[in-house]
Amino acid sequence: MPGGDLDRSYQELRGRLEEKGIDVDGVEAKLRAQRVETPSWAYGNSGTRFKVFPQPGVPRNPFEKFEDAAQVHRHTGICPSVAVHIPWDKVDDYGELASFAGSLGMRIGAINPNLFQDEDYKLGSVTHPDPRVRRKATDHLLECIEIGRQVGSDIQSLWFADGTNYAGQDSFVERRHRMLECLREAYAAMPEGMRMLLEYKFYEPAFYHTDLADWGQSLLMCQKLGDRAQVLVDLGHHALGTNVEQIVATLLDEDRLGGFHFNARRYGDDDLIVGSTNPFELFLIYVELVDAERRGARVDRVAYMIDQSHNIEPKIEGMIISVMQLQESYARALVVDWRELEDARRSGDVLRAYRVLQDAYQTDVRPLCAVVRQQLGASADPVGAFRASGYMEKIASERQGGVQMSWT
Amino acid sequence: MPGGDLDRSYQELRGRLEEKGIDVDGVEAKLRAQRVETPSWAYGNSGTRFKVFPQPGVPRNPFEKFEDAAQVHRHTGICPSVAVHIPWDKVDDYGELASFAGSLGMRIGAINPNLFQDEDYKLGSVTHPDPRVRRKATDHLLECIEIGRQVGSDIQSLWFADGTNYAGQDSFVERRHRMLECLREAYAAMPEGMRMLLEYKFYEPAFYHTDLADWGQSLLMCQKLGDRAQVLVDLGHHALGTNVEQIVATLLDEDRLGGFHFNARRYGDDDLIVGSTNPFELFLIYVELVDAERRGARVDRVAYMIDQSHNIEPKIEGMIISVMQLQESYARALVVDWRELEDARRSGDVLRAYRVLQDAYQTDVRPLCAVVRQQLGASADPVGAFRASGYMEKIASERQGGVQMSWT
Amino acid sequence: MPGGDLDRSYQELRGRLEEKGIDVDGVEAKLRAQRVETPSWAYGNSGTRFKVFPQPGVPRNPFEKFEDAAQVHRHTGICPSVAVHIPWDKVDDYGELASFAGSLGMRIGAINPNLFQDEDYKLGSVTHPDPRVRRKATDHLLECIEIGRQVGSDIQSLWFADGTNYAGQDSFVERRHRMLECLREAYAAMPEGMRMLLEYKFYEPAFYHTDLADWGQSLLMCQKLGDRAQVLVDLGHHALGTNVEQIVATLLDEDRLGGFHFNARRYGDDDLIVGSTNPFELFLIYVELVDAERRGARVDRVAYMIDQSHNIEPKIEGMIISVMQLQESYARALVVDWRELEDARRSGDVLRAYRVLQDAYQTDVRPLCAVVRQQLGASADPVGAFRASGYMEKIASERQGGVQMSWT
Amino acid sequence: MPGGDLDRSYQELRGRLEEKGIDVDGVEAKLRAQRVETPSWAYGNSGTRFKVFPQPGVPRNPFEKFEDAAQVHRHTGICPSVAVHIPWDKVDDYGELASFAGSLGMRIGAINPNLFQDEDYKLGSVTHPDPRVRRKATDHLLECIEIGRQVGSDIQSLWFADGTNYAGQDSFVERRHRMLECLREAYAAMPEGMRMLLEYKFYEPAFYHTDLADWGQSLLMCQKLGDRAQVLVDLGHHALGTNVEQIVATLLDEDRLGGFHFNARRYGDDDLIVGSTNPFELFLIYVELVDAERRGARVDRVAYMIDQSHNIEPKIEGMIISVMQLQESYARALVVDWRELEDARRSGDVLRAYRVLQDAYQTDVRPLCAVVRQQLGASADPVGAFRASGYMEKIASERQGGVQMSWT
Repeated sequence: MPGGDLDRSYQELRGRLEEKGIDVDGVEAKLRAQRVETPSWAYGNSGTRFKVFPQPGVPRNPFEKFEDAAQVHRHTGICPSVAVHIPWDKVDDYGELASFAGSLGMRIGAINPNLFQDEDYKLGSVTHPDPRVRRKATDHLLECIEIGRQVGSDIQSLWFADGTNYAGQDSFVERRHRMLECLREAYAAMPEGMRMLLEYKFYEPAFYHTDLADWGQSLLMCQKLGDRAQVLVDLGHHALGTNVEQIVATLLDEDRLGGFHFNARRYGDDDLIVGSTNPFELFLIYVELVDAERRGARVDRVAYMIDQSHNIEPKIEGMIISVMQLQESYARALVVDWRELEDARRSGDVLRAYRVLQDAYQTDVRPLCAVVRQQLGASADPVGAFRASGYMEKIASERQGGVQMSWT
Repeated sequence: MPGGDLDRSYQELRGRLEEKGIDVDGVEAKLRAQRVETPSWAYGNSGTRFKVFPQPGVPRNPFEKFEDAAQVHRHTGICPSVAVHIPWDKVDDYGELASFAGSLGMRIGAINPNLFQDEDYKLGSVTHPDPRVRRKATDHLLECIEIGRQVGSDIQSLWFADGTNYAGQDSFVERRHRMLECLREAYAAMPEGMRMLLEYKFYEPAFYHTDLADWGQSLLMCQKLGDRAQVLVDLGHHALGTNVEQIVATLLDEDRLGGFHFNARRYGDDDLIVGSTNPFELFLIYVELVDAERRGARVDRVAYMIDQSHNIEPKIEGMIISVMQLQESYARALVVDWRELEDARRSGDVLRAYRVLQDAYQTDVRPLCAVVRQQLGASADPVGAFRASGYMEKIASERQGGVQMSWT
Repeated sequence: MPGGDLDRSYQELRGRLEEKGIDVDGVEAKLRAQRVETPSWAYGNSGTRFKVFPQPGVPRNPFEKFEDAAQVHRHTGICPSVAVHIPWDKVDDYGELASFAGSLGMRIGAINPNLFQDEDYKLGSVTHPDPRVRRKATDHLLECIEIGRQVGSDIQSLWFADGTNYAGQDSFVERRHRMLECLREAYAAMPEGMRMLLEYKFYEPAFYHTDLADWGQSLLMCQKLGDRAQVLVDLGHHALGTNVEQIVATLLDEDRLGGFHFNARRYGDDDLIVGSTNPFELFLIYVELVDAERRGARVDRVAYMIDQSHNIEPKIEGMIISVMQLQESYARALVVDWRELEDARRSGDVLRAYRVLQDAYQTDVRPLCAVVRQQLGASADPVGAFRASGYMEKIASERQGGVQMSWT
Repeated sequence: MPGGDLDRSYQELRGRLEEKGIDVDGVEAKLRAQRVETPSWAYGNSGTRFKVFPQPGVPRNPFEKFEDAAQVHRHTGICPSVAVHIPWDKVDDYGELASFAGSLGMRIGAINPNLFQDEDYKLGSVTHPDPRVRRKATDHLLECIEIGRQVGSDIQSLWFADGTNYAGQDSFVERRHRMLECLREAYAAMPEGMRMLLEYKFYEPAFYHTDLADWGQSLLMCQKLGDRAQVLVDLGHHALGTNVEQIVATLLDEDRLGGFHFNARRYGDDDLIVGSTNPFELFLIYVELVDAERRGARVDRVAYMIDQSHNIEPKIEGMIISVMQLQESYARALVVDWRELEDARRSGDVLRAYRVLQDAYQTDVRPLCAVVRQQLGASADPVGAFRASGYMEKIASERQGGVQMSWT
């Protein structure tokens, strides 16, 4: 969509970056190595509490979700894995699902247990006052670890909707202790090399308190569990005004950043297309990731996952745009002039330091990203290519009968 | 639940209030005249976007909803009317529904059109770019006006979920003009004596912008429509930190306060039990209402309606508690010492003025409210009496078969 | 700072825009006609309630403030006017100040009365319970109108710190009436051609309620005063999560947008450099302004003013950066492909519409802005040129003795 | 101010509580043992960034501040200690200040270093890029520890204004490391029995990021320092919507709650009279404290301190009201029916559990608190007694000449 002649724009940009001393080949290598995992549930119908708008061609089973995810990978070149959700993606034979994924050039990524859609979980899952419910919840965690072992997934990605709606409803402290006990059992069951990511969320669906409401609550749990327990940062799960990039930097500094759920929000947990509300914030998060790598932090342990919930926009195209915005944000962070930045910081030159970041942010990196995608055998113009491919029309006509999958 | 001997507590309170010069008989008369409307949809199942937890005994049709609402009225004495939602409460014969309500000592209150649960409304209803969809939406408004005329309801209570999710998606200005055109047609169709209330909402289910996002947007529409168009204030529909009582006072001063949707929230539009998160705010809203009546504002045109969405708590009991908290807040506002307050304000005595309100707020008015309920033939202890009545057990066993009603 | 060869980058950009059908000459003409007013108080010392950090070379009188402002104009080419604050900029002979400004190629812009720094205003100015204080406040408004008449300024820019800190402290309604009475007297005193802008602010320095807390409160006042009363939008004066561009569009649609106070914020009214926290929001505001001009709205009546309060950054350079970010945001809004956008909206193509804006936003317009500044006889690289000019060193050494000006 | 006959109201309340099984003598004993520390700086002038309104009779030195604080203790009976701020309360001879305090029945409480009002700290204190500034900051910490040792204070209460205003200005991670290094040196210098409290703050005076922005950031520092480093919770230092009582409960559970700075806020860090915006929240915090004591948590290590900044209200009276509201909140928390609450929680009876808290909250405990104050030899009606005492008139006439103390 930047239009014009790609090669001319690319050469102009490359020349400009090289004059500033940026190693453009190195930047491109980093961009080729970038990976983003998309979530199976984003390909099914989803919506708000008021209405789920069904869309034509939506998958009717986990296999069709992988087909759709493969389209995102085909056009972007950096999305070969798919996070699955149990029981939404429950199948009789996970080996069959993994093989099918492999046949598409894809693989199964993080395993996401579901502990919020059973009648039993009305007052909590691993925090529930009733030991029977906690047993059931823990068993589900164990089941998901077993699935992960079977399909070769090394990440258990846990989000707990647990919380209360009214003051007094339950004891904050006892709920912490109950959760810890359940998680310890699950942690102990994980094979070596598997990690447990603990997501936090400021509010919703619990309205008075959420047991893991912020990164501090998740981090405390992780500290008690062990070093393969890490915090998962979902961009939409913070109080308004929170500096998310600072949290990212802190967790990286503590070696406790397990991964991201990328999406965008204006007010609540809106689960919009990544970067669509404040793209500058997304850039600043990537600046921290690039900086951490420079410092030698273990960024290889960070899982980059998208978690968005399309309400009105076409699902596959919405996902492609999110991936592109992650790619462009990373590219901008990669062209930051660190020498200049560090010099400005050292000399207390506030405005020069700020302008170093602004300079990188304002750089139109789209030609660079397009060329990188071509290098990967994907599309210079992913949205245009996807629209032209006829895939949407094909699935809309072929996926007749059956029940569309939904995230609820 | 205050416990102890009601009569002794009541006499102690009455004596204390009279010593301060409060006309306790007058206060009781006001409390007996208080009316609160409950919403039919609160008796059906509801929930969050993640899960709706069904409950035993939930109504399977509008008639059963009225039966449940009659329980709330039976125990509180001040809730004889029920707001209905079309099409959730659609029946073949509204006369039959009205008669049935009458047989229970109840009546139909405000009519609430639904313009957010049809596939056509994915991008808006009265604001939709496509004139066909706007026609459909307007026809539904006209239908609801006709139903209102049939059942003798004088309030059309309109909430528009209309908005956009992404910057650029549609034109703010054109959407305003489209909405105004549709509302003008509906307004013109209202019989004399019928009012149109325009609710606003800060966010959700639209995430980038909501067409009627705040009281200013609603008020501008009302000004263009006529003096029977008024603003509806839902307590959960404001930005964090908003001074809601100031909005209430301003709208009363402009004769544009049409009514309330009472509920409580901590962060989003949580639709919790009224007064459960910040009871002091609820008290301050009632202080403005009492003050407005003192000034001669038309408080008779204010509709007091509850709009809550029970997620985990029993529906009828939750509603009873909300009604009691409205009653207690009103009672506290009625025992404000206005002479002292005005004197403190005039002399710029900030702390004395504040403490006059604190004094009223801290007063334990529960004995007074219990006595008033007895005077009305309702229950001194509504929750206890309802629990003891066996109604819950009765409907849980009788309402077998059929499909429970839900708000979606 | 984009680096590289300006002409090459400019030609590449120009070519790309023209291929998309953008009239680049027209865009440049608009950019040359852009005007931004800087505030005299931003050149003096300012800070937070905790500390004001004084800076070397800060002006000691209004004349030196104009000298500094002239530097901003010299390097940006679009800032010939300066908003003044009474009494901070009080001088014996306003004619002399105006002449001095003229000698620098500058002029006096909006007049800002001060109604918050006198002991008398502790409980309010035009809303104060005591008529003597209201008289004093109104007299100050009249004095400022007279100053405006003398110096040929056509804008009275009013911000009221009025509000209360505690529930009960004063009556919302009586305060509204008192304010209206005072403003009516001031409005009547304005010569034809003079406008009164009413700023609103969500909170601070009043903490329980602010009399003009949102655009709705200001608009109601303006409606009662007359069509030369308009609302002023300060970007930092909204609740978190507010869609400011929607407010801008609505006020333009009602012909009630009087002007802006540009700055940036993350949480409170941080008064940071424009565009430094969410540059995408700034772009979207300019999109509405460009769209309004396309529709024929009276954008000529919109005053574009900066109101920032430098805490730690050098004042003149901070101001230059703010002006550049306003220029770049406007430039991006001017390269929106409206035909494509309207087509996407009409066909309900949500993602295409969003991407049209993204395409304009991601365009690196810096070469275009640099060329425009050259056309205006200003600096291609304003920050670099200002730093190289030696002005900072000059004033730091020359402005010895006397008392630095401060905004308090 | 509840009015009426105190003894009659007290007997009625006592009877009602005893019928519910509350040990009223035990409650009174707890209330007599309650302690609240007031801050020396609240007796001096303070204000917003826009204006500090001076008040008659304000202290001109630390000794006069202790005189004023002694008035608060005289009328409430529970405020014998005063937090001091260095250098605001710097004196040549701390022994003399301590003796003077003793002669008033008072003592010196927590020591508060000031690391935000020196020119050197513009870009940070213990986080500053320049080692010279960090040395200076650390030396001040050491100085304050020495003062604490001299006056027998066992608490160092640290608040860091450190942060940045612009993205890129400095490195989050390097600042963490610099802070930790400085704090380690200070921690090591503390005598046994002295504790270091680390306050966090969501925003202000830094606007882009604050180094200790939330409880998680403070807790991580404390964990690295040792078990005499604990977190200090200031009620005004959280993002909107934060559940503060949950944080309190969590820190108590981790034995890391060092103390409170009590105040109230609606939006920012408004530093209003305690309990004046959401008294229900204050009650819920005390419920957690009472619950923690029941569980055997070390609540004896919690320092209860007020930190408010009076803008428009008289200082001593404002402080008295804050202390009363803390007393009343504690009293309400002490009459919670824990047996009933635990039973309701165990049986998943959400509404019963909520109503147990509501029952305690709605109880008008003022007669009980008045009697407790009488038992302590203080005033049944502290505000009335203070107003009648003539103290305000006395200091207004006596404290002529000299410079009023201010917090800046």
